Amino acid sequence: MKQIIEIVPNFSEGKDLSIMERIIAPFKNLEGIKLLNLEMDASYNRSVVTVIGEKDLVFARILESAEIARDLIDLRRHKGEHPRMGALDVLPLIPIFGISEEECIALSKDLARALYARTGIPVYLYALSAERPQCANLPDIRKGEFEGLAEKMRDPFWNPDFGTAPHPSAGAVAVGCRKPLIAFNIDTDSNDKKKVLNIARKIRFSGGGYRYIQAGAARIAGNICQVTMNLTDYQQTALYQAIEAVKMEARRYKINITATEIVGLVPKECLVNSLKYYLGLDDGESLDLSLEEITALSLEHFHLRDFQIQKIIEYYLDKS
Amino acid sequence: MKQIIEIVPNFSEGKDLSIMERIIAPFKNLEGIKLLNLEMDASYNRSVVTVIGEKDLVFARILESAEIARDLIDLRRHKGEHPRMGALDVLPLIPIFGISEEECIALSKDLARALYARTGIPVYLYALSAERPQCANLPDIRKGEFEGLAEKMRDPFWNPDFGTAPHPSAGAVAVGCRKPLIAFNIDTDSNDKKKVLNIARKIRFSGGGYRYIQAGAARIAGNICQVTMNLTDYQQTALYQAIEAVKMEARRYKINITATEIVGLVPKECLVNSLKYYLGLDDGESLDLSLEEITALSLEHFHLRDFQIQKIIEYYLDKS
Repeated sequence: MKQIIEIVPNFSEGKDLSIMERIIAPFKNLEGIKLLNLEMDASYNRSVVTVIGEKDLVFARILESAEIARDLIDLRRHKGEHPRMGALDVLPLIPIFGISEEECIALSKDLARALYARTGIPVYLYALSAERPQCANLPDIRKGEFEGLAEKMRDPFWNPDFGTAPHPSAGAVAVGCRKPLIAFNIDTDSNDKKKVLNIARKIRFSGGGYRYIQAGAARIAGNICQVTMNLTDYQQTALYQAIEAVKMEARRYKINITATEIVGLVPKECLVNSLKYYLGLDDGESLDLSLEEITALSLEHFHLRDFQIQKIIEYYLDKS
Repeated sequence: MKQIIEIVPNFSEGKDLSIMERIIAPFKNLEGIKLLNLEMDASYNRSVVTVIGEKDLVFARILESAEIARDLIDLRRHKGEHPRMGALDVLPLIPIFGISEEECIALSKDLARALYARTGIPVYLYALSAERPQCANLPDIRKGEFEGLAEKMRDPFWNPDFGTAPHPSAGAVAVGCRKPLIAFNIDTDSNDKKKVLNIARKIRFSGGGYRYIQAGAARIAGNICQVTMNLTDYQQTALYQAIEAVKMEARRYKINITATEIVGLVPKECLVNSLKYYLGLDDGESLDLSLEEITALSLEHFHLRDFQIQKIIEYYLDKS
């Protein structure tokens, strides 16, 4: 059986498309690997790349891409709103299909070792791959950013897992396995960001809400506000719970939900499990649907906008 | 300002009322302290006592009560369904009014020291008062029960915080500060315990649900099932969220909610905060109500059954 992983490398370049084209070239025009998305953000001066494919192929190609990024991005001259410590700043690996979380963690450690050997860039193992508690949370590792890295690494507490000092121009990188994360937004009919933020606070873990919801408020086009969320473990806290919890909290303010939005990709299982709720089926009951049917039912029940079959990860697996 | 705490000592005697009458005598007939409840369970062979009052008075009186329990309850002859390790098995302290959590933790440690000095019964500091991670969770301390205590205490990992060996007949006790816990149940119109348990699983923390909800299912009179809950931090996860989350999950099964029930006491603040949701007020907006008004509105909006003003903790504060 094929073992499929997703990687979401973040590079510290968000303005120059010609540079990003060279960095993502290793993911193009190959059987068994697919570049799903390149999202460049000029004010962040950062790009988020999404790649899915057979694990050995992804392993080989991200090494190549990281080496190109090391040569083209110079952190000594980099400015942007988003915190960063490296040319390739963070490299999450996500198990998708035919590979367990444990296997994906082991793979991430092999990849970290190979990345350091090939590029000379020191690596922190983070997220599920972290071998020390202080490295579980990326913002803690990245605190002080590129500029503070040399001094930070001299503290034994912040020694990288591979390497000992920052790469002079490319800094350091965090590599680790994480669970698939669903970026999910819910549009409201309100322009009151304070109220929408209150809704977000009530549903998120840090405010006593759902265990695997991170949430905030954002003002979007049309001067309305949305609850913007990450579902960090959709098998435990489901899409339908996020939708219904937002609706419930919004009732306090007589605010209505107008649409929802999945940013990036979503595993078929995430959609199917939440469709079962709206169809009145139990988790254990089977619901065999084609990707086309899942797309149609998701549009209907989740009030999704801008949703197409191409957002479902399995769409690419079927074709690769 | 008066500093009011609640204590909920659990004693390993649930059958003989005459014994319990002697154990709770120190809490009776005094200004500034109130015995709120004695709940005896014969099959558990255990009693749960609820006392509220001025902290110095409660401190003095529970020492007296613990000494009486030591002399009247012999664990060597005790049988019951509930796990236990001592005559006074566990002593939670809860800050209620005019006392911070930090002060209540400090008080619990003074009380633990005094309890050991007076009774010779070794004490584990648990819950928020735990000084070692292995002691945070009561079931871990109590594992092995009275019969395994002597051997367990010889392991340095399980040394008590005060004392070194079990009391021969009275075992050991866990003392600690915890947050006020709301025992809250929601009745359904279903007799399908499996479905009601699924609802409970979805809303509880361990199933990806709300951060401060513990929940299960129970069959009650009339052969219907209820979701039975503890809200372990009502300031973070509110009563209305528990109600609305259960309603939402129950919709999957076309199950309806028929009533709710608060077991034991509830702070006024817990009710008022959730009334604000139903009245369309923000958390920050004030809602000044008499205890009588709170009672009436709570009956209406939370669908409470068996609820009276005497369930509100402040009812006793106003009178003491």
